[in-house]
Amino acid sequence: MENYINIIYNPQKNDWKELLRGKNGQTDKTNENGVKLILKNIMESGDKALLSYVKIFDNINIKASELVVSEKEFEEATSKISNELSYAINCAISNVKKFHTAQKSPDISVETMPGVTCRQKSIPIGKVGLYIPGGTAPLFSTVIMLAVPAKLAGCKEIVLCTPVNKEGKIAPEVLYCAKLCGVDKVYRVGGPAAIAAMAYGTESIPKVDKIFGPGNSYVTIAKQLISNDICAIDMPAGPSEVMILADDSANAQFICADFLAQLEHGNDSQAVLATTSPSLAKQVQSLLKEQIEELSRKGYIYESLKKSRIVVLSSAEELAEIANEYAPEHLIICTENYRELAEEIENAGSIFLGNYSTESAGDYASGTNHTLPTGGWAQSYSGVNLQSFTKKITIQEITKEGLKNIGKIIQTMAYAEGLDAHAKSVSIRMEE
Amino acid sequence: MENYINIIYNPQKNDWKELLRGKNGQTDKTNENGVKLILKNIMESGDKALLSYVKIFDNINIKASELVVSEKEFEEATSKISNELSYAINCAISNVKKFHTAQKSPDISVETMPGVTCRQKSIPIGKVGLYIPGGTAPLFSTVIMLAVPAKLAGCKEIVLCTPVNKEGKIAPEVLYCAKLCGVDKVYRVGGPAAIAAMAYGTESIPKVDKIFGPGNSYVTIAKQLISNDICAIDMPAGPSEVMILADDSANAQFICADFLAQLEHGNDSQAVLATTSPSLAKQVQSLLKEQIEELSRKGYIYESLKKSRIVVLSSAEELAEIANEYAPEHLIICTENYRELAEEIENAGSIFLGNYSTESAGDYASGTNHTLPTGGWAQSYSGVNLQSFTKKITIQEITKEGLKNIGKIIQTMAYAEGLDAHAKSVSIRMEE
Repeated sequence: MENYINIIYNPQKNDWKELLRGKNGQTDKTNENGVKLILKNIMESGDKALLSYVKIFDNINIKASELVVSEKEFEEATSKISNELSYAINCAISNVKKFHTAQKSPDISVETMPGVTCRQKSIPIGKVGLYIPGGTAPLFSTVIMLAVPAKLAGCKEIVLCTPVNKEGKIAPEVLYCAKLCGVDKVYRVGGPAAIAAMAYGTESIPKVDKIFGPGNSYVTIAKQLISNDICAIDMPAGPSEVMILADDSANAQFICADFLAQLEHGNDSQAVLATTSPSLAKQVQSLLKEQIEELSRKGYIYESLKKSRIVVLSSAEELAEIANEYAPEHLIICTENYRELAEEIENAGSIFLGNYSTESAGDYASGTNHTLPTGGWAQSYSGVNLQSFTKKITIQEITKEGLKNIGKIIQTMAYAEGLDAHAKSVSIRMEE
Repeated sequence: MENYINIIYNPQKNDWKELLRGKNGQTDKTNENGVKLILKNIMESGDKALLSYVKIFDNINIKASELVVSEKEFEEATSKISNELSYAINCAISNVKKFHTAQKSPDISVETMPGVTCRQKSIPIGKVGLYIPGGTAPLFSTVIMLAVPAKLAGCKEIVLCTPVNKEGKIAPEVLYCAKLCGVDKVYRVGGPAAIAAMAYGTESIPKVDKIFGPGNSYVTIAKQLISNDICAIDMPAGPSEVMILADDSANAQFICADFLAQLEHGNDSQAVLATTSPSLAKQVQSLLKEQIEELSRKGYIYESLKKSRIVVLSSAEELAEIANEYAPEHLIICTENYRELAEEIENAGSIFLGNYSTESAGDYASGTNHTLPTGGWAQSYSGVNLQSFTKKITIQEITKEGLKNIGKIIQTMAYAEGLDAHAKSVSIRMEE
């Protein structure tokens, strides 16, 4: 039987980027004009346009008053959650809460000169919108990852949009988590229409200040467009990806399982194994054929294997280098000296250390956030964290004495910039 | 003599937004297609296209090797800085350093369950690009505000682009500050071409991970476009603005001077005075005519007065409400109970408290950053701060024992999402 994936031996460094990321940029803009039209119509016609898109794309014919999920539906959803799942979800929420609570940043106050006090304080963003895709799986874990820090940060209004599934329903797990995590309202609408509704506001759906959450390329385009116009977004998000760094000490079975876990997300997921061990590379290559047989989402995996890579490199230094070049969303490090290697990593969303830190732990329950920068954006973006739901305001108070100390400095600089009204605002106070 | 500005008494709350922000959105997109073409040409043709734009827009005919500012030019620049200005600049840098050093965030480590350890650590963004506009004044203060935190954060490469002035030169103050603050290279190029060069990289100018700095509407459009494609940006930035909240305790002369200091920035600046004191409103209205006479940048001020407002409101609560609605870049609070009022503020870039905290202090030297969200973006964005130059990476390590504690939780959730390869990545480890 043929192998599903080839092993690439010692590729030239100059070729790494193209080998892993392909030739094109990050976002497919093909559908930008279609998305622009959806945004424009919802901005101009509110609910009327929104309901027409819900009919076309989500395939349900509802009135504006039916956009919002009712109390009764939440109750029904709760009744459908097994005790086992309820327990698991509550544990996950508890861990996510613990880790994100630790991210609270204290207010800062510094007297930079006598009488000149500068403060920085964190303030929650008032209204936030969470988007949960429908797609092939009910992603209730993403509800936890977004709503828990939003609530912890103190956001006053948390709304959530998600499309109905093929049966015309929102998955009960999504509603259960939304309720548990303190989401104020859930609306049944998906895709760019949901993003537009939260960005511009409609009669039924409130305008929010920042939108969070993953989605397909239409949703990503919509988020990018509104972020240039009226509403902040968490990050540019694309297909999910993992890089695994491994040496001879790694367990090929574990690595193969992590590789495949990434690929079942969807057709456009990507997994990359970079290893110094040719024999490990071969073992994983061969195990893929075995392990894949046991899985239900083979269709996605066969497709996403095409973008995936197994690369053999010559040293631990090169493993670090290729990770920093690729800037993976998820980075698993299974080498003997994994802690040392992790210290060399500058670009990654979330790192998983050693043989027992499977990515699934961070996807669901360990406490770290799973909403992470993809497509190389980890070079400059953080994953979603508590601070994503706050903004920092600076505050200064200068006493009369303080202005005497700093006044001349300000005036000198203002005159040098040719801004004499700025200088005047100081002199008028000093001459008092 | 006629008044330059009318007083608006007790406007309806529903009208506040339009009264202050006008009818239109935030960014003028008129020139988007022209900017797109510049980006495309530089992405595809590098230096060749870049130099043609430098010729057209910056009006200098140079070779690629002359884009970078030479050591000799830095030396010449230094020799032109007076002792007085050098002293002022060094004090400002020292204060900005003090305040931004205090913003360092400690790494976090939390054991969320026995054997499940989650960490968050800050890592500097590798390569950053600073943009300093040419325009009507040599904005060397912005060099300080961007380069000091970039250097403190530990960015490995800091480059700066700025256009030459009418004399074909970069202001010596800009070069002096760039050198002093640790900028690695300065390139003489302005406008969207500079943004494109830093985002995509050319033969002469390195590709960076994130671009910071203000600019005109062309620069803003370029920054927004590249932020959707390849390179992060600090924030959507537009014309500068101030809101002043005042009551009878305020000094009309001081407030008038702050009002005018804002307006001298450019034709599209905006100042808003909101006060509970009709007599203060009238005094400021009248003082504007006097104070404006002493200023050199009257042309800008007459123009930007058109967008500016004096509003009389009925209570301190309304002052806080209108500030939160407007979400000003700068907010000056000159009321008797200014500290209490400041506690009510949720949306603002930077706040200045009491009669002696002129905005000019924060513009230049107190220590706070002057690169702040405008156009209402303070609802969701922070001003530039130390964290703007870092990203947070999460790291988790789960022991074999830890996986026993959390494994079942992960599996239950993974199966409920229909992701059995995720569950398998746990079971394969637990069954070992």
